Amino acid sequence: MADARADPRDAAAAPALSLRRAYRLVLAYDGTGFHGWQIQPDAVTVQGTLLAAAQRLFGGDVRVIGASRTDAGVHALRQTVALAADSDHPAATVQAALNAHLPREIRVVAAADAPVGFDARRTARGKRYLYLIDNGTVVSPLLLRWAWHVPGRLDLGAMRTALAALHGTHDCSAFCAAPGREVEPTCRLRALHVRRRKAIVAVSLSADRFLHHMVRNIVGSALEVGRGARPPGWLAEVLASRDRTQAGPTAPAHGLTLVRVLY
Amino acid sequence: MADARADPRDAAAAPALSLRRAYRLVLAYDGTGFHGWQIQPDAVTVQGTLLAAAQRLFGGDVRVIGASRTDAGVHALRQTVALAADSDHPAATVQAALNAHLPREIRVVAAADAPVGFDARRTARGKRYLYLIDNGTVVSPLLLRWAWHVPGRLDLGAMRTALAALHGTHDCSAFCAAPGREVEPTCRLRALHVRRRKAIVAVSLSADRFLHHMVRNIVGSALEVGRGARPPGWLAEVLASRDRTQAGPTAPAHGLTLVRVLY
Repeated sequence: MADARADPRDAAAAPALSLRRAYRLVLAYDGTGFHGWQIQPDAVTVQGTLLAAAQRLFGGDVRVIGASRTDAGVHALRQTVALAADSDHPAATVQAALNAHLPREIRVVAAADAPVGFDARRTARGKRYLYLIDNGTVVSPLLLRWAWHVPGRLDLGAMRTALAALHGTHDCSAFCAAPGREVEPTCRLRALHVRRRKAIVAVSLSADRFLHHMVRNIVGSALEVGRGARPPGWLAEVLASRDRTQAGPTAPAHGLTLVRVLY
Repeated sequence: MADARADPRDAAAAPALSLRRAYRLVLAYDGTGFHGWQIQPDAVTVQGTLLAAAQRLFGGDVRVIGASRTDAGVHALRQTVALAADSDHPAATVQAALNAHLPREIRVVAAADAPVGFDARRTARGKRYLYLIDNGTVVSPLLLRWAWHVPGRLDLGAMRTALAALHGTHDCSAFCAAPGREVEPTCRLRALHVRRRKAIVAVSLSADRFLHHMVRNIVGSALEVGRGARPPGWLAEVLASRDRTQAGPTAPAHGLTLVRVLY
């Protein structure tokens, strides 16, 4: 979930110039059974699973880079991925073949040719996330995978007022899990919406970029306001503090879905 | 999913007159991991899991009867259940204690006192079911548990025309899995709706009662019309035939959700 412009961890995933074809894939996944996007030794991850499927298809050297490094348990409706390989296959064939190799929890929902060297992360202009809250008195079994169960009265008006203060360009260190690690803490938040449909409260957030755990920290803090534990003006104070210890708890990963990546 | 007015299989589940308190429970469940509602030896069922939780709570003799015997894999938003036990607990305590003993895939969403001898099945005036179809070109990983993936063009207008012919009171043997087993094949269908929201097509059906596999057989047949394999008038012909071999394939269980039981 963190953007990074010069993150040394990306070196292994960087597109090799020798790979002569690039594709832009759009992936949907149920993150429940995965240890997040980023490839790790001894853990099942979305990137690792996609890489294994692509290696079965293309044989040799393959690179896959996702626009968002979603955390363990986070879902995606439209994650954009750059796939580089030595390939003669048209994009539609790559899509069908990858879907044949992937578990059903990961689907390539679209595939297109991309310029060689296409970087899904660094060229992204923004991302949109959705956070679902199950506000029912009793947790809904049908929402267990997709929503955080928060029973009790929630003041959505107060949450909207609180979130409106985050609109615009700010140093968002207060909502970043490990601020020191980030090269650049400035983010431009474009849209912050809170809607209710029956027991489900949906918080959607768009920004040019997000820091590590940023959506989950903003949602956890906004809920402190919604529950009445903090006044609506508190979120602006937290933001201004640039201090992670001032913010509310991190909302759990399973309520979060990457909706789309904007280019 | 079948109603039955004098089904000998119910004998074991019938409320014993010696049990001096009855509750009306409303259950929600994710049916994915259960072999349906009805208790079976050597299989995990919703009724069996609820009974075990109630026996832990009340100790002695307990009876649980659900209004709908949902098939393996079918979900419920509001299944009504009669619970009879020797109990001094208020309904709210029973709800909280059962939820503490049940897996999160089953939740008691409401509980109230009921007259002793309350029979959730025989007193039901009707039921409403929802069948979800994932009409996306590629299956959505986020709908795997809840929707049947049917790609390709679907003519919803033709499906609506076809389903309208089922409105009213009919012998529904043509849509019954095992017609000979049913005491009474007449059902009064009240509402049949087909809606689309993006790639999701939702078919909702209400009736005073449903025969075994009836919703799934109606949906499977309506999809034959939606795909253009059959004309809209075909569903009326199938109904009039009273012959199960005339109908379309049975839609899979996991797309089906019991929405509520009407009293």
